[in-house]
Amino acid sequence: MKALVYDGPGQRAWREVPKPTLLEPTDAIVRVDAVTICGTDLHILKGDVPTVAPGRVLGHEAVGTIQEVGSAVGTVKPGDRVLVSCISACGRCRYCRVAAYGQCLGGGGWILGHLVDGTQAEYVRVPFADTSTYVLPDGIPDEAALMLADILPTSYEVGVRNGRVEPGDTVVVVGAGPIGLAAITTSQLYSPSHIVAIDLAQSRLDAAKQFGADVTISADQDAVEAVHDLTGGLGADVVIEAVGVPDTFELCTRLVRPGGHVANVGVHGKPATLHLEDLWIRNVTITTGLVDTYSTPTLLRMLAAGRLDTTRFITHRFTLDEMTEAYDVFADPQHTGALKVALTRP
Amino acid sequence: MKALVYDGPGQRAWREVPKPTLLEPTDAIVRVDAVTICGTDLHILKGDVPTVAPGRVLGHEAVGTIQEVGSAVGTVKPGDRVLVSCISACGRCRYCRVAAYGQCLGGGGWILGHLVDGTQAEYVRVPFADTSTYVLPDGIPDEAALMLADILPTSYEVGVRNGRVEPGDTVVVVGAGPIGLAAITTSQLYSPSHIVAIDLAQSRLDAAKQFGADVTISADQDAVEAVHDLTGGLGADVVIEAVGVPDTFELCTRLVRPGGHVANVGVHGKPATLHLEDLWIRNVTITTGLVDTYSTPTLLRMLAAGRLDTTRFITHRFTLDEMTEAYDVFADPQHTGALKVALTRP
Amino acid sequence: MKALVYDGPGQRAWREVPKPTLLEPTDAIVRVDAVTICGTDLHILKGDVPTVAPGRVLGHEAVGTIQEVGSAVGTVKPGDRVLVSCISACGRCRYCRVAAYGQCLGGGGWILGHLVDGTQAEYVRVPFADTSTYVLPDGIPDEAALMLADILPTSYEVGVRNGRVEPGDTVVVVGAGPIGLAAITTSQLYSPSHIVAIDLAQSRLDAAKQFGADVTISADQDAVEAVHDLTGGLGADVVIEAVGVPDTFELCTRLVRPGGHVANVGVHGKPATLHLEDLWIRNVTITTGLVDTYSTPTLLRMLAAGRLDTTRFITHRFTLDEMTEAYDVFADPQHTGALKVALTRP
Amino acid sequence: MKALVYDGPGQRAWREVPKPTLLEPTDAIVRVDAVTICGTDLHILKGDVPTVAPGRVLGHEAVGTIQEVGSAVGTVKPGDRVLVSCISACGRCRYCRVAAYGQCLGGGGWILGHLVDGTQAEYVRVPFADTSTYVLPDGIPDEAALMLADILPTSYEVGVRNGRVEPGDTVVVVGAGPIGLAAITTSQLYSPSHIVAIDLAQSRLDAAKQFGADVTISADQDAVEAVHDLTGGLGADVVIEAVGVPDTFELCTRLVRPGGHVANVGVHGKPATLHLEDLWIRNVTITTGLVDTYSTPTLLRMLAAGRLDTTRFITHRFTLDEMTEAYDVFADPQHTGALKVALTRP
Repeated sequence: MKALVYDGPGQRAWREVPKPTLLEPTDAIVRVDAVTICGTDLHILKGDVPTVAPGRVLGHEAVGTIQEVGSAVGTVKPGDRVLVSCISACGRCRYCRVAAYGQCLGGGGWILGHLVDGTQAEYVRVPFADTSTYVLPDGIPDEAALMLADILPTSYEVGVRNGRVEPGDTVVVVGAGPIGLAAITTSQLYSPSHIVAIDLAQSRLDAAKQFGADVTISADQDAVEAVHDLTGGLGADVVIEAVGVPDTFELCTRLVRPGGHVANVGVHGKPATLHLEDLWIRNVTITTGLVDTYSTPTLLRMLAAGRLDTTRFITHRFTLDEMTEAYDVFADPQHTGALKVALTRP
Repeated sequence: MKALVYDGPGQRAWREVPKPTLLEPTDAIVRVDAVTICGTDLHILKGDVPTVAPGRVLGHEAVGTIQEVGSAVGTVKPGDRVLVSCISACGRCRYCRVAAYGQCLGGGGWILGHLVDGTQAEYVRVPFADTSTYVLPDGIPDEAALMLADILPTSYEVGVRNGRVEPGDTVVVVGAGPIGLAAITTSQLYSPSHIVAIDLAQSRLDAAKQFGADVTISADQDAVEAVHDLTGGLGADVVIEAVGVPDTFELCTRLVRPGGHVANVGVHGKPATLHLEDLWIRNVTITTGLVDTYSTPTLLRMLAAGRLDTTRFITHRFTLDEMTEAYDVFADPQHTGALKVALTRP
Repeated sequence: MKALVYDGPGQRAWREVPKPTLLEPTDAIVRVDAVTICGTDLHILKGDVPTVAPGRVLGHEAVGTIQEVGSAVGTVKPGDRVLVSCISACGRCRYCRVAAYGQCLGGGGWILGHLVDGTQAEYVRVPFADTSTYVLPDGIPDEAALMLADILPTSYEVGVRNGRVEPGDTVVVVGAGPIGLAAITTSQLYSPSHIVAIDLAQSRLDAAKQFGADVTISADQDAVEAVHDLTGGLGADVVIEAVGVPDTFELCTRLVRPGGHVANVGVHGKPATLHLEDLWIRNVTITTGLVDTYSTPTLLRMLAAGRLDTTRFITHRFTLDEMTEAYDVFADPQHTGALKVALTRP
Repeated sequence: MKALVYDGPGQRAWREVPKPTLLEPTDAIVRVDAVTICGTDLHILKGDVPTVAPGRVLGHEAVGTIQEVGSAVGTVKPGDRVLVSCISACGRCRYCRVAAYGQCLGGGGWILGHLVDGTQAEYVRVPFADTSTYVLPDGIPDEAALMLADILPTSYEVGVRNGRVEPGDTVVVVGAGPIGLAAITTSQLYSPSHIVAIDLAQSRLDAAKQFGADVTISADQDAVEAVHDLTGGLGADVVIEAVGVPDTFELCTRLVRPGGHVANVGVHGKPATLHLEDLWIRNVTITTGLVDTYSTPTLLRMLAAGRLDTTRFITHRFTLDEMTEAYDVFADPQHTGALKVALTRP
């Protein structure tokens, strides 16, 4: 079969590899019907994630059809349409028992396209299939479900729910790229009074408006002043960091009101400064986290009920064998305007 | 001044009474600019609430303008437009300290139009003005704010929040009168997948649809079967009782899924049967409660931000001196179609 | 091997049955090293639980040693000392994913000694071994761990945690049998100010004092008055029902303060009356539930750290082949003073 | 009367000042029966808190007797023995309404001995007396109650409750000075499995053992390794920072397990480094906060019930007019071994 293989920093190829087979009684083999590309995949290609070995098939998000299951798999069977989640869960360890699957100690967590071969392929072996795939209700298109493999649960769990967004809140989202737009989308599930988007690029602020932000703050504005003006001088109830650099994190801690929450979603490569000399007295809560995907069944129910619009994230569509072109488009959003791409089986 | 006076069971009159004066340093005198009538007022008139003495001015919901404040009042001043809440709070007792104002032990709770003269008058004395009135942001019409005096916080706190509605839930509201419709409205703040309304009257089910229910169940249907069909046989995540009779309460306990919540909002005059022989094993949570109005500031923020439409509850409008006619209309919803009435200062 | 077999109402025998074998890849065969008897077993013997078929080996609590595991079992291996929990968990269904194992939809829940053969035997087949057994830390005696198979997590989860006991609370436990004493024990993990025990038998109230109650109320006292005196007229913060009859449940709802919790632990055979005409206005929360055993790992950690004394529940000790005598003693606590019995492999 | 006056950096005197009088209808005048000194007072004396003006009477913790109350005070009266809390609460503002009194926007918060004259005096004016004093139950000695004015609620709210200590947890307290020892004391209200104390001074670690720590880690040990050994390699469930310097804060973030909590209690004067490059993926929650004293009534109930031993914190006792000597002893704990001092009316 064909797959997108990481051949070392800067090297990728859509090329022939052996088709996966069942290795454990808890495995499933899934035919990939739709797949997408994540910002993390670009980081891997730059060589930023040394735990990914050359030769690895990338990708941790897919919608597909079960082909074969191991002897211990009980909840999915060949022919089932399933969502393949970015997080695999052993279902047995201390963390899985409290639905913190992202921290799985039993061989799960983020493994697909990282420690085992991933989903940017014609077929993928999915470990712990019972607790790592989700049968799709009828009537949900592949593309719509695909956005639930990573970006939607990540923004919802790590941003909105860790940040404890409540009805009537003022929510600030710092960074209006795909994950920030997903945070704007999922914040609305809790009916905040205001959603404020902050970004350097006007095109992203325009997108933020379309996705539901009612206030936008651009690079030439004083964000702290603008948020204080909006909130009677207090600051925001919830601030979601969706960039991943020290400056934006530190901005978040200046935007939050006493008693408020800063929820970090961004992937950071460097330490930030925490101004405890100001913050120690302000009753602030700061959270970090990898997605656990505990919310995936809930988001699927909302999708099935028509309460969630996820296809708006997909700006470009390809067939699987256009993988290389899809990567080129996704890697250059400034020129292509790409948010998320979808590749489907021809 | 004129006021609506309860003169004993079945006796009410819009008649001259003395204008109220400050009695305590924490009091305010408020000119009533808009007022409404509650189902509870009808109960009082029937003689069902013996703690209301003849001669009492009724009414516990108003929007008005501060005329005068006692020496200890610090947060409102003459000229301020305020919401007068159905619940007064001493602000000092054990319950007020945890925002359970409805259970106030220091002289507050539901007192207006009950233990002291109320709001269906040209002027009202409001005890504990600092903690029992809410200054209105500019731009909120009197009528829109008026619905936040009782019906909206009651449905939100006692129904939606006690019931712990979460995104993706299936919520069933039993009873689609004004309070049930308010529960349908405020449930949507948490983005459930489905809102199911159950009522005997088709006109109420039609209203439920307009207010946001996506499924309605009428008297000639088997409600348990219908809810089980909708939920894969499990039952609803949250069931809100908004009628107040034993049968509807017992229905609620049959509609809820294992692990779900039954939130009672209805005012009950008789005991119900609790089928513990079925329920003991089902992880069910049942809550009751009088509104505390802790959510009033939040709801006001949402109203100011345009995130809440409350004027749709008002079906009939009068001037204050048409109080008698307004009572007649409100007391006969089958013929008048009344949900809530609003009376304003001419 | 020998096992305690239910041969229809009133009929039990410690007799030869076939030794269990692996049926599913997720099974384990466990040699029973210590086992106990539950009040539920007595109910089954009376014929009160028609879902138990004649021929069934009873028992749902044990400590044992893994003999053999199926091909998909990954966390326990032959030779491991394990706790066999009263609740089995498929680990994959909607309820297991939120740690509500007692409501498992995938073939688990309370099945041992109920729908499949149980632990009152020399060997037992344990389905879903990965998620239904718990490896014992070194140094925990079999007997001490045995109490964590049912009675401790039941009282802790369904009583103490559902009741939301907090430091400083007044907790009332109605019924001072084994489960009530367990609730008294586990309430202390949250440092209430007062633990009040109510029972008809003075011997049980004496036991309650020894287990940590600081106030006891006997049959000839007015419980409502006594609790109100203790709490400044308010009522208790948390009331735990540990009997299972309508009268005691209704008493609980009269003992709880506005804003408090009634946690039902008792197994009920009849409906109770819920006095909604009083309760609707009192902000009361009532919970029911079967144990989920989500707390078992926590309780094991506390046992290993020496923070929990569980052997005090064991009043009588037997060898496995004294099963019949053990049943006789356990079934007649009025004369034998039995709380829990322990039977161990000779 | 006599009072301890701050006369500018490094200058303090126990000297004659005018006796306070009622200024607002919500004030009370309290005769000081017992008072203590806080580390914050030492910071003020060094000139570290520029908001304190020369001439200010210091002190924010006392037990006393009400002498006189303003016209709007309703819950305390002359002759009442009361606890004067470090936090005053207007009782009306947005923060007071959610019991976040430390963030009071209406003139309260930490004002005593800071923005208005404090308690290290023979008499003190207490603003907002209804919501800022607590009537003492009979039988609680002044000294025992005195520890509830600041140190106990601070450690409990900002450390234990913000850190969400649960039964069975491993709790690490970094810094075993008075506030750290208070965190060790109040952690035990939630029955953790292990309490680990870390400090540089052996004398403090000895004190930590006496106060309830079961593991101590000294300067010459590798704290991260020691905590990982104790927790199976995971890290602690809760880490409480009770020092207030960058190094100890950063240590806390290395000691916490994925999914755990770091609760900062220390008062910081400099920023710390937050290693987001490690933490972003670890589901960590970090909290800061000034005490709100919402827990004071609860702690008083526990004290009255004999469930809390607070007098052990008091190592040195003086009369009020020995204020200067008391400051000398408290300011030099290395030599005096002082934890907390108590000064009482002769």
